Amino acid sequence: MNRKQKSPRESTVSMTELVLPNDTNTLNNLMGGRLMHWMDIVSAIACQKHSNNTVVTASVDNISFRTPIQLGDVVTLRARVTRAFNSSMEVRIDVDKENIPAGQKVISHSAYFTFVAVDRHFKPVEVPEVVPETDEEKALYDGAMRRRQLRLILAGRMKPSEASELKSLFDEKMKDH
Amino acid sequence: MNRKQKSPRESTVSMTELVLPNDTNTLNNLMGGRLMHWMDIVSAIACQKHSNNTVVTASVDNISFRTPIQLGDVVTLRARVTRAFNSSMEVRIDVDKENIPAGQKVISHSAYFTFVAVDRHFKPVEVPEVVPETDEEKALYDGAMRRRQLRLILAGRMKPSEASELKSLFDEKMKDH
Amino acid sequence: MNRKQKSPRESTVSMTELVLPNDTNTLNNLMGGRLMHWMDIVSAIACQKHSNNTVVTASVDNISFRTPIQLGDVVTLRARVTRAFNSSMEVRIDVDKENIPAGQKVISHSAYFTFVAVDRHFKPVEVPEVVPETDEEKALYDGAMRRRQLRLILAGRMKPSEASELKSLFDEKMKDH
Amino acid sequence: MNRKQKSPRESTVSMTELVLPNDTNTLNNLMGGRLMHWMDIVSAIACQKHSNNTVVTASVDNISFRTPIQLGDVVTLRARVTRAFNSSMEVRIDVDKENIPAGQKVISHSAYFTFVAVDRHFKPVEVPEVVPETDEEKALYDGAMRRRQLRLILAGRMKPSEASELKSLFDEKMKDH
Amino acid sequence: MNRKQKSPRESTVSMTELVLPNDTNTLNNLMGGRLMHWMDIVSAIACQKHSNNTVVTASVDNISFRTPIQLGDVVTLRARVTRAFNSSMEVRIDVDKENIPAGQKVISHSAYFTFVAVDRHFKPVEVPEVVPETDEEKALYDGAMRRRQLRLILAGRMKPSEASELKSLFDEKMKDH
Amino acid sequence: MNRKQKSPRESTVSMTELVLPNDTNTLNNLMGGRLMHWMDIVSAIACQKHSNNTVVTASVDNISFRTPIQLGDVVTLRARVTRAFNSSMEVRIDVDKENIPAGQKVISHSAYFTFVAVDRHFKPVEVPEVVPETDEEKALYDGAMRRRQLRLILAGRMKPSEASELKSLFDEKMKDH
Repeated sequence: MNRKQKSPRESTVSMTELVLPNDTNTLNNLMGGRLMHWMDIVSAIACQKHSNNTVVTASVDNISFRTPIQLGDVVTLRARVTRAFNSSMEVRIDVDKENIPAGQKVISHSAYFTFVAVDRHFKPVEVPEVVPETDEEKALYDGAMRRRQLRLILAGRMKPSEASELKSLFDEKMKDH
Repeated sequence: MNRKQKSPRESTVSMTELVLPNDTNTLNNLMGGRLMHWMDIVSAIACQKHSNNTVVTASVDNISFRTPIQLGDVVTLRARVTRAFNSSMEVRIDVDKENIPAGQKVISHSAYFTFVAVDRHFKPVEVPEVVPETDEEKALYDGAMRRRQLRLILAGRMKPSEASELKSLFDEKMKDH
Repeated sequence: MNRKQKSPRESTVSMTELVLPNDTNTLNNLMGGRLMHWMDIVSAIACQKHSNNTVVTASVDNISFRTPIQLGDVVTLRARVTRAFNSSMEVRIDVDKENIPAGQKVISHSAYFTFVAVDRHFKPVEVPEVVPETDEEKALYDGAMRRRQLRLILAGRMKPSEASELKSLFDEKMKDH
Repeated sequence: MNRKQKSPRESTVSMTELVLPNDTNTLNNLMGGRLMHWMDIVSAIACQKHSNNTVVTASVDNISFRTPIQLGDVVTLRARVTRAFNSSMEVRIDVDKENIPAGQKVISHSAYFTFVAVDRHFKPVEVPEVVPETDEEKALYDGAMRRRQLRLILAGRMKPSEASELKSLFDEKMKDH
Repeated sequence: MNRKQKSPRESTVSMTELVLPNDTNTLNNLMGGRLMHWMDIVSAIACQKHSNNTVVTASVDNISFRTPIQLGDVVTLRARVTRAFNSSMEVRIDVDKENIPAGQKVISHSAYFTFVAVDRHFKPVEVPEVVPETDEEKALYDGAMRRRQLRLILAGRMKPSEASELKSLFDEKMKDH
Repeated sequence: MNRKQKSPRESTVSMTELVLPNDTNTLNNLMGGRLMHWMDIVSAIACQKHSNNTVVTASVDNISFRTPIQLGDVVTLRARVTRAFNSSMEVRIDVDKENIPAGQKVISHSAYFTFVAVDRHFKPVEVPEVVPETDEEKALYDGAMRRRQLRLILAGRMKPSEASELKSLFDEKMKDH
């Protein structure tokens, strides 16, 4: 029997948050932990849509927080599943922040989370394959293998010598992380 | 003039949280995003203690969430600064979870965050050096350089060929990443 | 000088929320007040986008809550400005709810809020006109005048005899209240 | 068998809230959505007291937000059931706000919500009749029929031509809407 | 010049809370700390009303938590100032809990808090005297002196031998503590 | 059969909190009720660790709030069980507050709570004895009997004439209350 297939478009979720006082530190900046909390929720929903299943967070890739987000900014998070591996899914989250009265909108952060679809007893269940459609989706799909190998190495579950895909990392800087 | 020095012991912070209903998903498990939010707060406090300064989250390393944490569990997070680089600090967070009535305590997660000390205008300010004292602290201090190179490569700010320390990653699996 | 113009598309905002335990009553149903709180935030952001200004809630039209939303459901709210009157804007919010594991998605609620754009001293400021593009947007634009007259009558600021547009309400049931 | 009867006094509930930072927008004003959330809770409790039953929000009438409420203000909400129809109840909420150090107390908002009493399977159950005692209660009781007809028309469940009570709306402005 | 006078009736505040999931422990019981948080807010508002001033919590008397409060219960807190001493006020909080569908209402807790009225620099400012009107208010007014002496002794600011009023405590059990 | 024994060291719990905007009043000071909420959680965890059981708050002793805690301060709470009586435990909480950028750390508050270990039906269950080890722990252990007698008198469950231990209160001020 053939495994079900879905495009990244079908799992795309958009979430908008207003930065309130309790989300900020003493410099009136959004705390990194709050942003990660939102990233986790939006990407969990994307993975639920892809798998039509309950999902649990499996890992988070390196995230860099270079753009401060201020009190009163509007934060938009867009998540979509880039690739699936049996029961796990990689999801990319793109974040932008807007100071609406000032008319400024900035792409501020991106991140990769992975989730696993599970049943009520936490047993992993198979999820549909991802079939990328656009060029951007294809590039994300291809990069997913490299990022997976890096994750496995960092978690001590793969020897670096086996990470054939990851070698490109050391030949030239990845365009899209 | 000499730069100030501090041990990891001086920045160690311990935080305890009780997993409440709103922290959990529909399987009654702590959501990964909530845990990262707590990690961010405890490690920010550790970096404040090290630097006696306001700090902002700069990056988060790959985190793996393999141990589910349940509603009603007690989560203990311990953070300490492992190494400082001018204005930035790497902090390691160790998490354990306890089901106290059942008498079960499990080391559940670890993570590395980096923070930058800044003044009121977000200009980076110098922080004290870290002087590791125990063997564990020394191992963390040494590993910090490798993890920093990986961060810089992943953020597109260092060429892999320049990452002399990171090569050990591909020779043998890092003991403590 | 001509007043600026914007389409409803330019102010459209989408927000996704996961129904958590504290959002629900003892029947595990989303409380109406929480849903209205989300409606208020998403429509405030839409009006900020339309006006590039700070906005305050001016009124809420009659809302009917006929579809219960359950714990664990994903709620998607979409808001767009339908028409502007000097400093005030009418915004329509469409809500759907999904039980993702069950694969059920239902259009659950719609509502109209009005906001006023204000400066730091709460003085109303002029906002761009709305130029509807699609047929649906044109129908919403036309209906906005009727809804405005009803609001003014209910607030005691217009005599029913002056509500020329509203008469259609009593001739035939509004298609799209 | 006779249906049980209760006065509005028996369902009256009073709730006091202090406006905290997270309740406010960037102008330090209470957000409309937070106020509606409080209105929903206090009126749900009033309907529970009237029906001695679990209740769910059925509808909200047009609300006008003309008086801004500031950070630090004390908000008092008073709710009472004005009239019952089989399983549904109309409840009126009166809100005042106080800046206590300044000694200012202002009647700021009023609203009508309707609730339905339900059993564990969401099946409507009959509630006691309302027997108004004071003149104010009688006026609210009488007006409830007009407001109900307007609700039914706006929800597309009654033809305007059948709304005999509502005609008064178009003859003279309702005193107490 | 004469000091201003107010009755306990003028400072009486009533607050109603619905017990939500996050307020409860793993036995579905309201946590004591949440109840004290509500007590603090309602009694702060009562003291603000008495003093028309900003107030800060000065102390809490012994509280006994013998009646469990359940998820879904409605908690009503009533606070009033019993006596004033220069810049400090004693406030009594009476709490009852209702399981409304079951028709059960129980007086569950009482407590005494003290507050101090302060200006923007935290300097204490004089507050009006309390003039008790009813017999119950007079008994609370009289008992306030005994409770104050006990507070001062427990805080190490009065020698027990000086506590003339408190002696009654050891002669016969206080009726109303 | 012998009853189990534990030292206060075995139940010691440390909790760190960052004071956020919603925790503060209009003077930017931590509200007393929020601090008591944190005290309740940290001491509940200490009692869970001592008893390996579910616990409920039984009482709180007089707390004096003389040191204001500011927005942005780091609050550290340390709780340990001082003595056990069949199914109840007394726990002492020590609080300090730090303004880290200013390098100021101050012991700000202490408090005594009591908890009871219960089974799923709220029936009290026996807990281990406390065996104090250090001089400080012994002093706390001895004082616990006096504090217990005061609690029982204040709750109207012991006649003052029977409070043999408490007499020391009136002979000389308790060192450590």
